[in-house]
Amino acid sequence: MTYCIAVSVNDGLVLTSDSRTNAGIDNVSVHCKMHMLPTIDDRKIILLSAGNLATTQAVLDQLRRDIKDNSETNLNNVKYLSEAAEYLGHVSVAKQHRHASTGQNSFYPSATFLLAGQIENEPHGIYLVYPEGNYITSSKQTPYLQIGENKYGKPVLDRFLKIDTSLDEVARCCLISMDSTMRSNAGVGPPVDLLEYRKDSFVLNEYYRFEEDDQYLIQMRRIWQEKLSEGFAAMPQLNSCDAQPFPSPYQ
Amino acid sequence: MTYCIAVSVNDGLVLTSDSRTNAGIDNVSVHCKMHMLPTIDDRKIILLSAGNLATTQAVLDQLRRDIKDNSETNLNNVKYLSEAAEYLGHVSVAKQHRHASTGQNSFYPSATFLLAGQIENEPHGIYLVYPEGNYITSSKQTPYLQIGENKYGKPVLDRFLKIDTSLDEVARCCLISMDSTMRSNAGVGPPVDLLEYRKDSFVLNEYYRFEEDDQYLIQMRRIWQEKLSEGFAAMPQLNSCDAQPFPSPYQ
Repeated sequence: MTYCIAVSVNDGLVLTSDSRTNAGIDNVSVHCKMHMLPTIDDRKIILLSAGNLATTQAVLDQLRRDIKDNSETNLNNVKYLSEAAEYLGHVSVAKQHRHASTGQNSFYPSATFLLAGQIENEPHGIYLVYPEGNYITSSKQTPYLQIGENKYGKPVLDRFLKIDTSLDEVARCCLISMDSTMRSNAGVGPPVDLLEYRKDSFVLNEYYRFEEDDQYLIQMRRIWQEKLSEGFAAMPQLNSCDAQPFPSPYQ
Repeated sequence: MTYCIAVSVNDGLVLTSDSRTNAGIDNVSVHCKMHMLPTIDDRKIILLSAGNLATTQAVLDQLRRDIKDNSETNLNNVKYLSEAAEYLGHVSVAKQHRHASTGQNSFYPSATFLLAGQIENEPHGIYLVYPEGNYITSSKQTPYLQIGENKYGKPVLDRFLKIDTSLDEVARCCLISMDSTMRSNAGVGPPVDLLEYRKDSFVLNEYYRFEEDDQYLIQMRRIWQEKLSEGFAAMPQLNSCDAQPFPSPYQ
């Protein structure tokens, strides 16, 4: 399994991904799921990937070859991020379809992507590209997208992320969301990659990689645990409400 | 959908359930999922239910009829909670099977239960009864069981619940877990039922029902939100770690 988050707020982008891949429970390995594409200087495009590893690698290779070969459509000549998402969807569907088999032991090597970045004077943004090739973007009300094991880490994002949250706060929120998911699901694991991109900067110089025993993560977990405990302690006692009779067994 | 939690700690039991049921997204109604069985005074047995509503009602009716008819096996004559779980599994499989259909439009009205309580001098406990009729119980390391939409609310349980957590703290933790799930999944909704059972008491006088606009829940959410914000603010700045160069596009 996988867990990746992309957040687009007023100040820019925050991307977070785990690194655990598995083919069955007994074949677990480490693969970075955050990929920068080698584009020209007027743009930055980063992909996060979930799903079949062969498909994601085939897609990345194709995108890079298309750039090198200056193909009719490639990430260097698209003018909009939505165009990049559409092109990514097209490549992804082709690669999945190529290795699909039908019949009794049918197999479909599906993959899902988050595409994030900024092109020239266009606004920064994030796109979720489905295995079917179509895509969605985020909104002011829901400034994030997730792929992979998204449920465990969703509540903390829902409670905290707003369109005007600062990039550093978004980053800490994403690390908590990732840490919650790693605790509750063995299919998601370190190292954790984190990238903050300040809008209009066109540089990727705030990239962090956290190993399992990273001191920052350990400190973060300790502080979080303390604040949870304080939160429970600060809540009013339940007996301050009135207990009610238990509903009759025949209701 | 549904979300129910049963926790068994040293001091006793805490049970929590939502009340939203739906047959399709356009047929949503309110049904309490916490059921006391009308047993004799030497025992208390409570069920939480998830899944097909017709099956859960058929199972509850059968359990009540078996008690009234003093059947060979019923909840008044089982000596152990595990025996009650086995009997519940047996009844559940029979009710599901009766209304199942096979073929092209196959239908299986499956249901999952949490059984909790205490019988005479036996220890208190909780059991999760699968649709297949088999069951598991909790452990000292993982003192809780969940049914329904379990992922959203799992991290806060994993972070906080220990075998020696007090009943009141467990209750607050379960309410946060439930609140997180209701925020992130529209299939889970109020009213929320909460029951605390102190071991060896054989009384159910700490039962609470929280409507959507309950003042306690509103206060709880506000305090939780404040503590989350404090937690993020208390975490060290990310630039206290060293940012790294972004991995080369060809890695």
